[in-house]
Formats: sequence, structure tokens, C-alpha cells
Amino acid sequence: MATQRILDFLATRRPDGPCLVVDLDIVEDNFNAFRKALPDSAIFYAVKANPAPEVLRLLASLGSNFDCASVAEIEMALEAGATAKRISYGNTIKKERDIARAHALGVSLFAVDCVEEVEKVARAAPGARVFCRVLTDGEGAEWPLSRKFGCVPTMAIDVLMQANALGLTATGVSFHVGSQQTDTEAWDAAIADAKYVFEALADKGIVLTLVNMGGGFPTRYLKDVPAASAYGQAIFASLSKHFGNRLPETIIEPGRGMVGDAGVIKAEVVLVSKKSDEDANRWVYLDIGKFGGLAETMDEAIRYPIVTQHDGERTEPCVIAGPTCDSADVLYERTPYPLPISLTVGDEVLIEGTGAYTTTYASVAFNGIEPLRAYVI
Amino acid sequence: MATQRILDFLATRRPDGPCLVVDLDIVEDNFNAFRKALPDSAIFYAVKANPAPEVLRLLASLGSNFDCASVAEIEMALEAGATAKRISYGNTIKKERDIARAHALGVSLFAVDCVEEVEKVARAAPGARVFCRVLTDGEGAEWPLSRKFGCVPTMAIDVLMQANALGLTATGVSFHVGSQQTDTEAWDAAIADAKYVFEALADKGIVLTLVNMGGGFPTRYLKDVPAASAYGQAIFASLSKHFGNRLPETIIEPGRGMVGDAGVIKAEVVLVSKKSDEDANRWVYLDIGKFGGLAETMDEAIRYPIVTQHDGERTEPCVIAGPTCDSADVLYERTPYPLPISLTVGDEVLIEGTGAYTTTYASVAFNGIEPLRAYVI
Repeated sequence: MATQRILDFLATRRPDGPCLVVDLDIVEDNFNAFRKALPDSAIFYAVKANPAPEVLRLLASLGSNFDCASVAEIEMALEAGATAKRISYGNTIKKERDIARAHALGVSLFAVDCVEEVEKVARAAPGARVFCRVLTDGEGAEWPLSRKFGCVPTMAIDVLMQANALGLTATGVSFHVGSQQTDTEAWDAAIADAKYVFEALADKGIVLTLVNMGGGFPTRYLKDVPAASAYGQAIFASLSKHFGNRLPETIIEPGRGMVGDAGVIKAEVVLVSKKSDEDANRWVYLDIGKFGGLAETMDEAIRYPIVTQHDGERTEPCVIAGPTCDSADVLYERTPYPLPISLTVGDEVLIEGTGAYTTTYASVAFNGIEPLRAYVI
Repeated sequence: MATQRILDFLATRRPDGPCLVVDLDIVEDNFNAFRKALPDSAIFYAVKANPAPEVLRLLASLGSNFDCASVAEIEMALEAGATAKRISYGNTIKKERDIARAHALGVSLFAVDCVEEVEKVARAAPGARVFCRVLTDGEGAEWPLSRKFGCVPTMAIDVLMQANALGLTATGVSFHVGSQQTDTEAWDAAIADAKYVFEALADKGIVLTLVNMGGGFPTRYLKDVPAASAYGQAIFASLSKHFGNRLPETIIEPGRGMVGDAGVIKAEVVLVSKKSDEDANRWVYLDIGKFGGLAETMDEAIRYPIVTQHDGERTEPCVIAGPTCDSADVLYERTPYPLPISLTVGDEVLIEGTGAYTTTYASVAFNGIEPLRAYVI
């Protein structure tokens, strides 16, 4: 939701064009909520969700660790004050020369999900710690989870044995239950898989110590979502159920859950029209769309709350579209969005819950439109 | 296809990381083919397809006009040597202050598709010429055409009458048959609609003169497409059929058809793996994906030809994915892509037909990855 600080900023600064405003107080609240919900888990913030320097500096100062997807993100985390020991290179898809650069920067924790990646890490970062990502089904997640990352648990056993054979430290298992995961029980099956891999490796004399439980923690969009504490309780119960009183070290990687609700995009209504006199829906065109930062509206996956100055007045179902000359740049059409009938050209709207996965997704210049500006306050 | 000039450039320069190389000779050939195919139509290049300054300068020097989606694109076209008279502000969604800026730059031709937009143009660009876009069904197009742009023909009559009433010059009708349109007959129904609007306006004493037939001209990807000359013949036949010997002025707006086959992206195989021993498909991960310039693989709409050093060897169906930590960053999965079994980590591949709708679609920094670099030779 738009905090008073964000509203005051917008009222005072009156920035022209669409922009994101992020309130650091909310980020700090979210960090503290995660720390309280899972006090024994290390927090590795998923930098890709929002790599704004101010966000990274705040989280570094609060003691966060960082889950990085690329060398550029590793450099940003270091720049923000994190040490290399607090950084995980969490992308399972890495060029060997990038692994070498990360290694040279001191990073020693790497994600893998196949023997081929283990071989690269062994060559480029000898002695590093690796965790193997296992596949999950992503049920309950609102952002589609594909089979892109991870392997089946039986293959993870081979991957970690190979890591061990090549002189790496086979340190554990990771998984991801799918982004915007609203089922607090979604972690249970994957934790069971982790335990299975732990036991299989123990039989081979290899002691795993780490379960990286990934992200997936949601932001509140239009529907209520469970609080961090509910996730903490469910996850802790699963860990106890499967690992008994020999709990492993654990990591969580919140991204959306850390910054999503800390940001609000201010946008402008550029046009309101109908396609024919009989059209059941009005078309509302904003100055931001799928290529300007709202990429997660792809297939209408994420449905953002939109606040207008006319809320409370009578509404009409609207198709909402972006400003580009691209016919695919439509945000909500399959399920039209109710907006006040009095909404008109030139009105400002606030798109809430946009602190994560917006600025960096914005296209560099599609239709000559500049990338989404961001203010972190 | 990769021309010898492109291959020589890549062999000599060995650029690191993914990049697009555009061969201006092909752009010039395409321009000449369009001019020959439709000698009586004015060519307005759709700048959004590829706004590289070298491309715009070449086309300006060849006599092209420019279809611009924003003030930034108008400024690029002017910078490239076009005069304002050769520029159309073809986006139907414009802020009033942007219309005023275009008007101040001398642009006098504007697209509209509703009365609300006409009112903005009348206030911000008094006396300008406007054409009204009508809806088409987009059948036969490979890139999805939504109802985002245009209105039904009966509404177009009201829109153009209102333009006339507000002191604008109601100049004609535009439409778009859908991008990557492979049916040369797709223009016929829309030309009939245009004629219907011409006649209705004539009955009111308003003489329209222009039919803007939009873009949609395809690039050859994996399947052959008709030549520009085939489109020219079909379109000219439709114009004659509906307008008789009183042919209107016409405009075409090629974008993809002008630059698509002039560009090739060089990419690198980052990882090849399977998810389980039983997996029917290999996964091939490239250093470019949906957020690095290949946005048109959305829903697997555009299927690019991919050339490897191992072509001709035995192939296996592969899922192809991009390098980011985003599960949606998968290019081809529903219909796996046959690639040589010998393809391996570190191999370079050429992704053909990528001269249009790639560089500017690239995200500004998702996962810390820099936008797609481009070389125009």
C-alpha cells in the first residue's frame, strides 16, 4: 500500500511520467518480520527482485545475505557493503568465466542442478561449496514455475557425489516452491525431498548441512496472503517433522516478500475509450505497460491493486493497456478490471505492490519510452 | 540469414556476450523491394522495429518516411535527417502534452481511434491531419493482434466527423492486419472497410484521401513467406477492386519486413543438461532469453531459426531457455526445438531474423544483465 511517506513524496516532488517509489521503512519491517518468523534461517535477499543501491545498502546494514543471479549482482551486493561470505551465486546457469570472476571476488557458495554445472564450478572455483537444486511442482504459486531449474532428487544425489569427487564441498539441497506462493504448506514436500537426498548422501559418507528453502514468499496484491509468521511456523514444523531434532542449517531467499509491498508506481491515464458504441468494456490506457515495468502481468499472472482518486464511486469493467504500439501490451483483458466510471484522461493512478520485479524488467527503450524511473525514500 | 558481411564481422571482432549485428545492405534491399512492390504507396518505416541511428539515417537517405510511436522516436527520425513532413505520429495513445511537442516539432499527421483522442489533437495540434484506425481481426498473423487499437468502422465515421467539426483535416483511415502476416489477402477486408468509411464521409461532404495500410509484412523465420511483390500485387488488386480507378493515396508501414532479416543475434550455449535420466528432452540454456531481447518468443509466437556449428548432425528435441533466474524465461518448451546432439557448453549459435523487435525490447538490467548490444554494419 502507498505509505504516507510515499504519498508525501509524490505530492511534493510531482515527478513527470511513470515512476516507482520505494519506502525503505517497509523493507526494514519486512526484513525484521522474516528474521522473527524464521530466527534460525539465514536471509539471502534475492537481489533480482529490486537491486536499487539504497535497498541493498539497507539490507546489508541489517545483516542480510544476498542471493545473486549474475556477477553484476554480486558486484552490487559487495558495493552495498556485503562481504563475499554473505553472497550466494544462486543461478544454476552460469558461464564458466563468470564463475571464475565470482570466485576471484571471494564468493564460495554456488547453485548447481546438473553434473555439467558441477564440472564448471570445479574448474573455475576449486574447493567451493555447492548446493543442488531439486525440482518442485510449484503448485499454489501465482507466477508460473517451469521445470527450468533443478533436477529430480535421485539425480541430485549423483550431482552432489560428483561435486564431492571433484573436490568441491557438497553442502546441501535447494528448491523453490514458486513465486507468490500462497500455500504455507508448499515447502513440506520439498523439505521431504531434501531429507531424502541428505540420507542418500550420508549412506555414501557425505554429510550435507544446508537446506536452501528459496523464496516464494508473497506480496499482498488484491487478495490477503498469510503473514511471514505463518510461513515460519509451517516451515519450522516441516523441518522438525522430516529432520527431527537434527535440524540442518537453512537459508531463505525472499525477494518479492521483502520489497514487493514497499513500492508503488505512479502512472497516468492517457486515454479512455470504447471500440464501438456497444462495447461492454471501456479501454483504459496508462503510461506504463507490459514493456515499461509491468512484465509480471504476462498472461495476467500478477493482478496489481490500482488506486484512483475516484475510488468508492460506481465502477465499470475495463480493459487496461499500456502506452506502446504493441498489441501484446495489454495488462488485463481476459478478466477485465473494475475502475470508476469517472476515471478520465490525465488522472493519476497508483499501482500498488510494485516494489519487486518492475524496474529491471522495464525495456531499455521500446517505442522510444525510457525505462521506469525509481525513487527510494 | 547471416550474410557474409555479418559472419566476417563476428569472426573479426569476436564480441563477448550476446549481440545483434545488422547488415544495412539487407535493409536497403528490403526498402527497394517495398518501393518496387507498391510504387504508388509512401513507405513509413515503423521506427519501433529497430530505431538504430544507422538504420534511420540509411532509410532517410533512401527517401523513407517514418511512423513514430512517441516523441522520442520523432526526435530520432528528425535527427536521422527526416523532415517533419515525412513523419507520422502513428500511436493512437498519446498524452496531450506529447501531441503538443510533436506539433511544435512540425509533425502534422496523427493517428486517432476515438473521439477522446481527436479532442486532444484538436487542442494540442490545431489544424493537423488525422486518420482513424479501424479494427481488423488479425487472422493469419503470427504475432497476436488484440483489439487494443482501432474502432469499428461505424464509429470511425463519427470520429472523423468530429475531427472535421473541431477544425482538423479528416484525412483518411488506417488499419493493421497483424504483425508477421503471412496471408497476402489479409488486407482485402480492411480495404473494403476503408472504402465504406470514405463513402460515408463523402455523403457528409467530407472527402477522405488517405488509406494507411499499416505493416504486417513478414520476415522469413523457419517457414517461407511470400515476397514483397506478392503483397504488392494482392494489395493493389484489392485497392482497385474497392476504389476502382479513383485510388486514394496510400501508406505502408513496414517494420519487421524492413529490418527483421537484416539482423542476426550471436549467442552462446551456457549449459546443456537433463532434468532426470529419463528426460526425453535436453535443456539448452543460452546467454540470451525472453528478457534480453527475445521477447517475441512470448507464448512461443515467433520461432527463430537457430544456426549452430553442428548443423547437419543428428538432432534431439530441446527445450531452449534464457540465462535469468526467472522460470518464465523459457523460449521454446511447448514445441521443443531440434538441435544437434553434439551442441555443447561454450558453442556459439546464430539466431536469425532478429533485426526487428529485439534490442529495444531488452530489459534494462534484469538479473544484472546488460541490455542487448547492437552493431550496425
